[in-house]
Amino acid sequence: MDPKAFVAGMSALGAGMAMIAGLGPGIGEGYAAGQACSAIGRQPEAQGDITRTMILGIAMAESTGIYALVIALILLFANPFVSQF
Amino acid sequence: MDPKAFVAGMSALGAGMAMIAGLGPGIGEGYAAGQACSAIGRQPEAQGDITRTMILGIAMAESTGIYALVIALILLFANPFVSQF
Amino acid sequence: MDPKAFVAGMSALGAGMAMIAGLGPGIGEGYAAGQACSAIGRQPEAQGDITRTMILGIAMAESTGIYALVIALILLFANPFVSQF
Amino acid sequence: MDPKAFVAGMSALGAGMAMIAGLGPGIGEGYAAGQACSAIGRQPEAQGDITRTMILGIAMAESTGIYALVIALILLFANPFVSQF
Amino acid sequence: MDPKAFVAGMSALGAGMAMIAGLGPGIGEGYAAGQACSAIGRQPEAQGDITRTMILGIAMAESTGIYALVIALILLFANPFVSQF
Amino acid sequence: MDPKAFVAGMSALGAGMAMIAGLGPGIGEGYAAGQACSAIGRQPEAQGDITRTMILGIAMAESTGIYALVIALILLFANPFVSQF
Amino acid sequence: MDPKAFVAGMSALGAGMAMIAGLGPGIGEGYAAGQACSAIGRQPEAQGDITRTMILGIAMAESTGIYALVIALILLFANPFVSQF
Amino acid sequence: MDPKAFVAGMSALGAGMAMIAGLGPGIGEGYAAGQACSAIGRQPEAQGDITRTMILGIAMAESTGIYALVIALILLFANPFVSQF
Amino acid sequence: MDPKAFVAGMSALGAGMAMIAGLGPGIGEGYAAGQACSAIGRQPEAQGDITRTMILGIAMAESTGIYALVIALILLFANPFVSQF
Amino acid sequence: MDPKAFVAGMSALGAGMAMIAGLGPGIGEGYAAGQACSAIGRQPEAQGDITRTMILGIAMAESTGIYALVIALILLFANPFVSQF
Amino acid sequence: MDPKAFVAGMSALGAGMAMIAGLGPGIGEGYAAGQACSAIGRQPEAQGDITRTMILGIAMAESTGIYALVIALILLFANPFVSQF
Amino acid sequence: MDPKAFVAGMSALGAGMAMIAGLGPGIGEGYAAGQACSAIGRQPEAQGDITRTMILGIAMAESTGIYALVIALILLFANPFVSQF
Amino acid sequence: MDPKAFVAGMSALGAGMAMIAGLGPGIGEGYAAGQACSAIGRQPEAQGDITRTMILGIAMAESTGIYALVIALILLFANPFVSQF
Amino acid sequence: MDPKAFVAGMSALGAGMAMIAGLGPGIGEGYAAGQACSAIGRQPEAQGDITRTMILGIAMAESTGIYALVIALILLFANPFVSQF
Repeated sequence: MDPKAFVAGMSALGAGMAMIAGLGPGIGEGYAAGQACSAIGRQPEAQGDITRTMILGIAMAESTGIYALVIALILLFANPFVSQF
Repeated sequence: MDPKAFVAGMSALGAGMAMIAGLGPGIGEGYAAGQACSAIGRQPEAQGDITRTMILGIAMAESTGIYALVIALILLFANPFVSQF
Repeated sequence: MDPKAFVAGMSALGAGMAMIAGLGPGIGEGYAAGQACSAIGRQPEAQGDITRTMILGIAMAESTGIYALVIALILLFANPFVSQF
Repeated sequence: MDPKAFVAGMSALGAGMAMIAGLGPGIGEGYAAGQACSAIGRQPEAQGDITRTMILGIAMAESTGIYALVIALILLFANPFVSQF
Repeated sequence: MDPKAFVAGMSALGAGMAMIAGLGPGIGEGYAAGQACSAIGRQPEAQGDITRTMILGIAMAESTGIYALVIALILLFANPFVSQF
Repeated sequence: MDPKAFVAGMSALGAGMAMIAGLGPGIGEGYAAGQACSAIGRQPEAQGDITRTMILGIAMAESTGIYALVIALILLFANPFVSQF
Repeated sequence: MDPKAFVAGMSALGAGMAMIAGLGPGIGEGYAAGQACSAIGRQPEAQGDITRTMILGIAMAESTGIYALVIALILLFANPFVSQF
Repeated sequence: MDPKAFVAGMSALGAGMAMIAGLGPGIGEGYAAGQACSAIGRQPEAQGDITRTMILGIAMAESTGIYALVIALILLFANPFVSQF
Repeated sequence: MDPKAFVAGMSALGAGMAMIAGLGPGIGEGYAAGQACSAIGRQPEAQGDITRTMILGIAMAESTGIYALVIALILLFANPFVSQF
Repeated sequence: MDPKAFVAGMSALGAGMAMIAGLGPGIGEGYAAGQACSAIGRQPEAQGDITRTMILGIAMAESTGIYALVIALILLFANPFVSQF
Repeated sequence: MDPKAFVAGMSALGAGMAMIAGLGPGIGEGYAAGQACSAIGRQPEAQGDITRTMILGIAMAESTGIYALVIALILLFANPFVSQF
Repeated sequence: MDPKAFVAGMSALGAGMAMIAGLGPGIGEGYAAGQACSAIGRQPEAQGDITRTMILGIAMAESTGIYALVIALILLFANPFVSQF
Repeated sequence: MDPKAFVAGMSALGAGMAMIAGLGPGIGEGYAAGQACSAIGRQPEAQGDITRTMILGIAMAESTGIYALVIALILLFANPFVSQF
Repeated sequence: MDPKAFVAGMSALGAGMAMIAGLGPGIGEGYAAGQACSAIGRQPEAQGDITRTMILGIAMAESTGIYALVIALILLFANPFVSQF
């Protein structure tokens, strides 16, 4: 098989596989949003604090999804292997 | 095997695999929506705040699903490998 | 193997795999609907607000399912690879 | 292998795989129906509102199952690849 | 390999795989039935409404199982590919 | 490989795979039966209604298991492909 | 490979795979039995009704396990394919 | 490959795979036993009825495990295929 | 490949796979033991009855683990296939 | 491939696979230990009975782990197949 | 196959696989954020302490996601194997 | 392939696979430790008894992890097959 | 295949696979952080002790993630096999 | 294939696979840490005992993770097979 094609094909597959990590933050952030809604329902006057905490928490939980995006983008656009063939 | 065909086929498979990440946000956002409905049922007068928080939370939880979409679209329409063969 | 056939076959398989993402929104939206029914049972007079929130939440949770549909349709009808062979 | 047979076989397999998505709505909608029954048991006079919400919610949760059906039907009857061989 | 045999074999395998979707509605509908029994135990005089809601909900949750059945039957009896070889 | 043998072997495998769907109704119906027992324990005089609802619910939840049985039987005894070789 | 041996081997594998469905009823029926014991502990005088409901429910939940057994037995003793080689 | 060896090997593998079904009854029956212990702790004087119900329920839940054993034993000692080679 | 070696190798693999069933009873029996401890903590004077019920229940839940052991031992020491080569 | 090597290799793999069963008792026994600690915390004077029941229950739940160990040891040290080549 | 291409392809695949670890921190951190929102809803005046603890906890839970990122980056940019061919 | 290399390679793979069993005791023992902490928090004066029970329970739950270690060590250092080639 | 390339490729794949272990600590530590936030919300004046315990617990739970990192780093930078070819 | 390379490659893969066991202790220990925080929140004056129990429990739950590390290190640095080729 053509060496370059093999590396490029595996990189495309690896990029797709890396994105699967995104289902973790998706579940976790949805949980956080649900708990925030529930907390506001119980204590409406704390809405500001709760929303701010939720945004902060979700932003931090997002990070592993972004890592996966970064690796996938590197595999596609800054692939250090493909250029060697 | 034809090099270009191998890369293109792996990219198509990788695009499909990346979309599986979408089941995470789907579950999480549904949970958030359900908790919001439940919170409004308990505290109807806070409906505005709760809905706003839910929309914000879901919009943020959506992000990993969008990342997966982005990678899949790149694999299909901006594939940096296919054009090299 | 025929290059075009390989790409087309992988695209068909990828389209089927992408649809699996649909089980996430299916579970999540069902949860939202169930919580909405439960909330109306507890607070019938808030039925309007709850239903509106449920529709909004489900519509947003639907998005990753639609992304998967979009990628599957692109793989089938706007496939950028198949036309190159 | 015969090119047309490969594409057709992969399409048949992809159609079957896409239907697996149907287990998500199946679980979610059953949950919604169960919560609706439970809510009516607690508040029988709200039966109209609850049933209407349940029907609406299930109809929306059904959508990803229908998307999968659509892709499977396209793979079988409007397959854009098979006719090219 | 014989082209027709490959397509027919993949169709048989795809039909079997599609039926796996049936475990979703099976779990969900059983949950609905259990919640209905539980609700009647708490409010026996609402038995009519609860049973009617349960039947309606289960009938709707059944749909993705029927979709899978439809695709499996099409793969077996209205297979558009097999007749082309 | 012999074409007929390939189709017959895949059909046998597909029939076995389709039966896996049966674990869904098995779990769901057991849940329904358990909830019915629990409800009778709380409200013994509603035993008639509860049992009738349970039987109805289980009979409906059974359907996807029967669909799988039907597809497996068709694959074995009314296989439209095997007779073509 | 010998055609008859291939069909017979796949049938043996399919029979084993079909039996996996049995873990669903096993979990579900155990749940039903546990709930029945728990209900009798709370309401000993309803023991007759509870036991009768449990037996009925388990017998119905058993069905998908029996379907799997039937398919496995057909694959082994009434295999319509093996006799054709 | 030797036809008889292929059939015998697949039968041995199928027998092992069928036994996996046994993890379902194992979990379910343990749950039933645990609930029975718990019920006796709450209502010691109902110990006779609870134990009798538990034994009955476990015996019925055992059935799918026995079906798997039966299929495995048939595959090993009454294998209808092996004797045909 | 040597026929006898193939059958023997598959039997060894099947014996190992059959033992996986043992994780079901392991979880279930641990649950039963835990519930028994918990019940004794709530009602120490019923310790005799609870322990007896636990032993009985675990002994019955053990059965599918023993079935798996039996099949594995048969595959190893009473293998009906290996002696035929 | 060398027949003896194939059998020995499959036996080594089967021994490793059989040990996976050990995660069931590990989870179950940990649950039992946790419930015992919790029960002693609620009723310290019953510590003797609870500990005795826990030891008994864990010892019985251990059995499937030991079965797996036995099969793995047989596969390694009393392998009835390897000596036949 | 070209040695360098094999190593590079496996590295790309390994980088993608490593990122899957990211779904763990995603779920866990989302849980932490949700609990923090819920805690603020119950005790708004402790918002400072809760947010600080949440940030600290999430930052520590992030670590395994970062390890995976590190390994993926090493596999891509500091790969010690690729340069040896 | 070299016979000795095949057996040694399979043994190395089997040793790695056996260690996966260790995730069961890991989860279970962590649960036990958590319940013990929780119990001490509720009843500090029973700390001695609770800790002793926890140590005893964890030590017993450890056993399947040790079995897996033993099999892995045997596969590596007392491998009865490798020395036969 | 080139021996060195095979070992290096397998090492890269093994390093990626080892990192998957990181999802365990990620979930567990997030749970710990969430419980700590929740505890501070209930007892703000114990914030110092709770935070210290959380940090200690997370640091210990981190260990298996670090082990996986260590093995991955060894596989990449201190690989004892690659240098032998 | 080169014998030594096969054994070394399988050992590297096995070392990576063994580390997956680490997700069990990661989840379990995180649970223990969370319960300890929660217990201190409820009973701050028992903080010393709770922390000590948590450290002890986590240290014991760590063991299977360490076993996996040991096997992985042996596979890499004390591999008894590689030196035989």
